[in-house]
Amino acid sequence: MKRYSIASIPGDGIGREVVPAAIGVLAAVADKCGFALDFRHFDWSCQTYLETGKMMPDDGLDQLRDHEAVFLGAVGYPGVPDHISLWGLLLPIRREFEQYVNLRPVRLLPGIASPLRDKAPGDIDFWVVRENSEGEYSQVGGRTGTGEDEIVVQQAIFTRRGTDRILRYAFDFARRLGRKHVTSATKSNGLYHSMPFWDERFAAIGAEYPDVAADQYHVDILAARFVMSPERFDVVVGSNLFGDILSDLGPGITGTIAVAPSANLNPERRFPSMFEPVHGSAPDIAGQGIANPIGQIWSGAMMLEHLGETEAAALVMRALETALTAPDIAKTPDLGGNGTTVEFADAVRTTLLGL
Amino acid sequence: MKRYSIASIPGDGIGREVVPAAIGVLAAVADKCGFALDFRHFDWSCQTYLETGKMMPDDGLDQLRDHEAVFLGAVGYPGVPDHISLWGLLLPIRREFEQYVNLRPVRLLPGIASPLRDKAPGDIDFWVVRENSEGEYSQVGGRTGTGEDEIVVQQAIFTRRGTDRILRYAFDFARRLGRKHVTSATKSNGLYHSMPFWDERFAAIGAEYPDVAADQYHVDILAARFVMSPERFDVVVGSNLFGDILSDLGPGITGTIAVAPSANLNPERRFPSMFEPVHGSAPDIAGQGIANPIGQIWSGAMMLEHLGETEAAALVMRALETALTAPDIAKTPDLGGNGTTVEFADAVRTTLLGL
Ligand SMILES: CC(C)[C@H](C(=O)O)[C@@H](O)C(=O)O
Ligand SMILES: CC(C)[C@H](C(=O)O)[C@@H](O)C(=O)O
Repeated sequence: MKRYSIASIPGDGIGREVVPAAIGVLAAVADKCGFALDFRHFDWSCQTYLETGKMMPDDGLDQLRDHEAVFLGAVGYPGVPDHISLWGLLLPIRREFEQYVNLRPVRLLPGIASPLRDKAPGDIDFWVVRENSEGEYSQVGGRTGTGEDEIVVQQAIFTRRGTDRILRYAFDFARRLGRKHVTSATKSNGLYHSMPFWDERFAAIGAEYPDVAADQYHVDILAARFVMSPERFDVVVGSNLFGDILSDLGPGITGTIAVAPSANLNPERRFPSMFEPVHGSAPDIAGQGIANPIGQIWSGAMMLEHLGETEAAALVMRALETALTAPDIAKTPDLGGNGTTVEFADAVRTTLLGL
Repeated sequence: MKRYSIASIPGDGIGREVVPAAIGVLAAVADKCGFALDFRHFDWSCQTYLETGKMMPDDGLDQLRDHEAVFLGAVGYPGVPDHISLWGLLLPIRREFEQYVNLRPVRLLPGIASPLRDKAPGDIDFWVVRENSEGEYSQVGGRTGTGEDEIVVQQAIFTRRGTDRILRYAFDFARRLGRKHVTSATKSNGLYHSMPFWDERFAAIGAEYPDVAADQYHVDILAARFVMSPERFDVVVGSNLFGDILSDLGPGITGTIAVAPSANLNPERRFPSMFEPVHGSAPDIAGQGIANPIGQIWSGAMMLEHLGETEAAALVMRALETALTAPDIAKTPDLGGNGTTVEFADAVRTTLLGL
């Protein structure tokens, strides 16, 4: 029997609720399809930080390195500043393991209402390919001067290598999916150095893919177009920051970001890739057992896909969509129901076993 | 009779169509209310750049300086890279004249359908206060290395003075409007230096306004919330880049960015302020006479307000809203009608004269 070793990091807040729920579904599909997922649990979180001054042990990355994938919940909790918690765990994993692609589907699921007028599943169905290792997210910079005279510098750093590889991934991905159209998010009218460079590289790489159409919009108007005409997108590629914004806005137009998954990919498979929902640790509802586990389950399906278990991945998605449209399904409160995390995940698991 | 000297810069593309149309409405309201607007026209545009290598003459800013306001259409046209056209005209005006506030209403107008389900005028009615002079828009940075090894650095620069004054403006503005709630756009979990500083200053300035509630969201989830729950916002304050994105997304949820106005304000009135629609020069429809002039007309109303002609400003808005709901109004094609720019602006003018 094929076995995969997976590092699971539930993290903080609702991460601790949705990760176990999703693992239940994943274990069931593994059983059904005849492979095994060996989860090893890492209890790294803001709690760890408060106790030890570190989000993870010094050799944390080494402990993860030998796994085939990392299954993450969410990191961040009141009491620990976000830039500490994220730069102490999530962002180093993305960087150290060269997970330079952050892949995020934006798809309206059956049984979930879009806040947009007249949209049905199929109308909203595209992908955001986000640069995940460099760009605007950088620790380079600092403060100078004091009091009234203080000045803060924040540097964004774009490398040709980093830019080209994400653009190429986007075009390859579009080609692989049979999607014929890649849209670039830019802001070359305001960001004087970085985005004109991004545009140049987009044009250069795009020219290598004559069979894939390419267009670009400034990120401000692109955000508006997500709302006004989401049908027109296939694959949208953006820098670390623009991809971040667009891949939360995308799920917003599909009803809730609670359902959105993401894959932090090291396409060369030299290092483990990481799978996590787009949502955060949601301190406001943590501990109540009512968090929506869909984003975590769907992230699990993306993980199975990455592991090569394509059939299992498809089964999970089919179970999810079937459960969502079942008349008596216990949806979580964010979807207007009164089900719990565990009840909904169980319904998906039961549906899956019956498929 | 009171006279105001206004510099008008139609600029490029549809700017050349909507500016004259809006001036017709403004001239009519001035007549009616007993003051005069003396427009001086400046034909600066990408055409100027192609002919002279400059977007405006070397003493361009000096030529504008003595006016009470600048009424701008849109700048930018294919054939001239955006970062050239914008950094050659729009951005220097904003900076040199210390127009550090970019004020943008997000309001669903009667007669225009929101792409959001079940939203009526009144449901979407808030303001974006955007920092307009520093931050992410900077010419500091550059390129180093060649070919595969090229690296591009883009610096964002936040000053305490620049940050405090925009935050204070936002709180003052909320208080003045009787809006009790300011929301800050941040991204302190990813942008390591700039946004934690922004958050600190937001907390410090917010503490000076105990009567105004303050909250903050990371810009990614904030963008999603614009779509999912626009009712909850009163005043949203953001950096130059975040304010830019949110103030295009805002109009997106009100149906079209063609209607959105903006005021680039020098609140101290040491320099002229500038009024311009949020939309760009729209090369795709330029020259056809079908551009929607609402954003330009509404920008004119904001200009009148700034000049102290409050009653005239209110009249323009009332005329606009009345015209929009008239049964036989010739709306422009973007609003589903088949009217022209001139026809629609004329209808607003006629309505105004009848008020
Ligand atoms: C044209 C561009 C530089 C400008 C900006 O980003 O400031 C525009 O998008 C705006 O919002 O006024
Ligand atoms: C938590 C935060 C640093 C992170 C990001 O911005 O990358 C999150 O918003 C995401 O999208 O995964």
